[in-house]
Amino acid sequence: MAAEIVNPRSDSGAGPEGGAEPLDSFDPAFALHRGGKMAVRATVPIRDTEDLSLAYTPGVARVCTAIAETPELVNDYTWKSSVVAVVTDGTAVLGLGDIGPEASLPVMEGKAILFKQFGGVDAVPIALDCTGVDEIVETVVRLAPSFGGVNLEDISAPRCFEIERRLQERLDIPVFHDDQHGTAVVTLAALRNAARLSGREIGQLRVVISGAGAAGVAIARMLIEAGIGDVAVADRKGVVSADRTDLTDVKRELASFTNKAKLTGTLEDALAGADVFIGVSGGTVSEEAVASMAKGAFVFAMANPNPEVHPEVAHKYAAVVATGRSDFPNQINNVLAFPGIFAGALQVRASRITEGMKIAAAEALAAVVGDDLSADYVIPSPFDERVAPAVTAAVAAAARAEGVARR
Amino acid sequence: MAAEIVNPRSDSGAGPEGGAEPLDSFDPAFALHRGGKMAVRATVPIRDTEDLSLAYTPGVARVCTAIAETPELVNDYTWKSSVVAVVTDGTAVLGLGDIGPEASLPVMEGKAILFKQFGGVDAVPIALDCTGVDEIVETVVRLAPSFGGVNLEDISAPRCFEIERRLQERLDIPVFHDDQHGTAVVTLAALRNAARLSGREIGQLRVVISGAGAAGVAIARMLIEAGIGDVAVADRKGVVSADRTDLTDVKRELASFTNKAKLTGTLEDALAGADVFIGVSGGTVSEEAVASMAKGAFVFAMANPNPEVHPEVAHKYAAVVATGRSDFPNQINNVLAFPGIFAGALQVRASRITEGMKIAAAEALAAVVGDDLSADYVIPSPFDERVAPAVTAAVAAAARAEGVARR
Repeated sequence: MAAEIVNPRSDSGAGPEGGAEPLDSFDPAFALHRGGKMAVRATVPIRDTEDLSLAYTPGVARVCTAIAETPELVNDYTWKSSVVAVVTDGTAVLGLGDIGPEASLPVMEGKAILFKQFGGVDAVPIALDCTGVDEIVETVVRLAPSFGGVNLEDISAPRCFEIERRLQERLDIPVFHDDQHGTAVVTLAALRNAARLSGREIGQLRVVISGAGAAGVAIARMLIEAGIGDVAVADRKGVVSADRTDLTDVKRELASFTNKAKLTGTLEDALAGADVFIGVSGGTVSEEAVASMAKGAFVFAMANPNPEVHPEVAHKYAAVVATGRSDFPNQINNVLAFPGIFAGALQVRASRITEGMKIAAAEALAAVVGDDLSADYVIPSPFDERVAPAVTAAVAAAARAEGVARR
Repeated sequence: MAAEIVNPRSDSGAGPEGGAEPLDSFDPAFALHRGGKMAVRATVPIRDTEDLSLAYTPGVARVCTAIAETPELVNDYTWKSSVVAVVTDGTAVLGLGDIGPEASLPVMEGKAILFKQFGGVDAVPIALDCTGVDEIVETVVRLAPSFGGVNLEDISAPRCFEIERRLQERLDIPVFHDDQHGTAVVTLAALRNAARLSGREIGQLRVVISGAGAAGVAIARMLIEAGIGDVAVADRKGVVSADRTDLTDVKRELASFTNKAKLTGTLEDALAGADVFIGVSGGTVSEEAVASMAKGAFVFAMANPNPEVHPEVAHKYAAVVATGRSDFPNQINNVLAFPGIFAGALQVRASRITEGMKIAAAEALAAVVGDDLSADYVIPSPFDERVAPAVTAAVAAAARAEGVARR
């Protein structure tokens, strides 16, 4: 077993000697990761004693003194206002679950370089060796002087909700749990464009979300905030409704503002006649259930790597199909949102990321598609260079409009 | 007063409108610091969907899984083993004192880019919003999964001693308080070369250190470890000796292994007949006291920006004079040590930095001077490109010899 895991491909029969082969001779992911994916660099020259005396002692002391006297200067004279901490405890990493902080680092590094590549935002992976809500909150509060924002990542529900809420209360820099809000922003953008394509008002859509974890809860909140007609959320035990007695605090609150139709029963029961399916569960949905949806439905089957329903099956019934995968059209990918959201927030030194800023991000993202809108193009590609500038500008403008910008 | 500090040059008469002018129109240090001094960069390309699927999902999941099963792979497939946290609480920043975490950031960024420039080591500034020993220790322990080493910086004594000791007990990565050990390593190197120049055995030297803070205590320990004959340390109340009743725990321990000669009285009393003066106090020493030292004495007056005695005065009596300043010969500068020490430790994945590794660093540093040794050249320039490779190699070899290397 150990050999099989050290060499993930040894069970494929491809390696002549199984686990004895080095990892990277089989899998390009290992070759790419060797030595890590990121580095720091100086943005000022240190060529000689004169440079050293400005960047370090004695010159640096004058900058420190100025910040001690006028604290907001830290944003002008250090990298604080351009750097985000990508914080995890390793408890809900991708679909892998609780693999711990060190095993989560490749994802956090990946996130960090996507911040840089797509948003021009510096980011530092911070994988914490603690899982208690109090411990995580205290630790991030203590780290905060060094960072302009905090991106929470891959922290399991329901702790992720309380951690984010408490950090937002304690800190005056943006704290954003991307698994919640990044996913919600991109989903809303795709949904707006799908509605526009089919000439429907979003206020008339009935949405069913499979999954009541971080993403499901945040999508439900955001869709309702944005004016979607009705949203029902199903967990493994069925539709979250006020009459259930097994709900966590978060799900009880969810029940209070979702499911106007007072649906009960299973996810598949709820899909009968629904206009939109949004899958963020990792479960599966039968072809029959998809067939039972309203005519011209939208199916966003975002589980990775296996969508809740195969896109080809969904296409037999649905007008618009999206997934989380890059090898099908309409990929719902968080990288469309988080770099521009933080870039915009940092640009105006926003104290937080409001609902309005997230909705502005979704609208800007949807607008990039413009006149090219089609059933296979309701959301831009992550490599569309118009995306990050559009999201950044929209978020910065919304921050100003909402009074949370500090410049 | 506020205008004077926001514009440190407004009291010089140089600015036509004093504090109303922007900071950076007067002082090149502010111009250089605008926007900070560092950034992160990706070391792998993300040009297309294929790249993204390797550096991020789904490919990254295979790397995470491998690390979850074989934890030491985190050193091969992330940047952990090449990145150091530069941790401070902002309580003893340069000579500025307790200016807080945000005002300390320019120094921590400076340190980070010196790590990169001189040692090829990635480093991240972490300025903590807490000052309790327990809080700092817990916080750094929680951060440790993301880093290959911890450089403690500008934390006031005596807390710095306990914080370092407890972190070294808790963590299996190097934890190094540079204000202590970096200074001690470079001082020892300079002292070895000064002794060689004058044909003296270090075992016959009597040293007096002014300052019993982080640097003074560490220098005393290291000189004794290296075989210096006798070391006396003076604080503001005089020589630290066992008969004093006002000593902290750290100073009481210091008294137990220093001051074999059982000196009492003031710093200047102790200097009479001494072979070496090492100043890390920020205080002053009179010309008379320097004149009272033994013939051919060494004066290392390292207070910055004002040496304890002016080098020109010291030269009237001493055979070798060193300072902390770059505009005099023989600059005792920590940048000669910490980049190579961490580079060597990280190269072999040392679990800690031992006394032997520090002494090896000092010897390697001293050896760079070689046959060019003179009274004005007992220590190399920070820009001597031989320094970091020599220190790195010596530290890595010592780690192997001492059994703390893990590869």
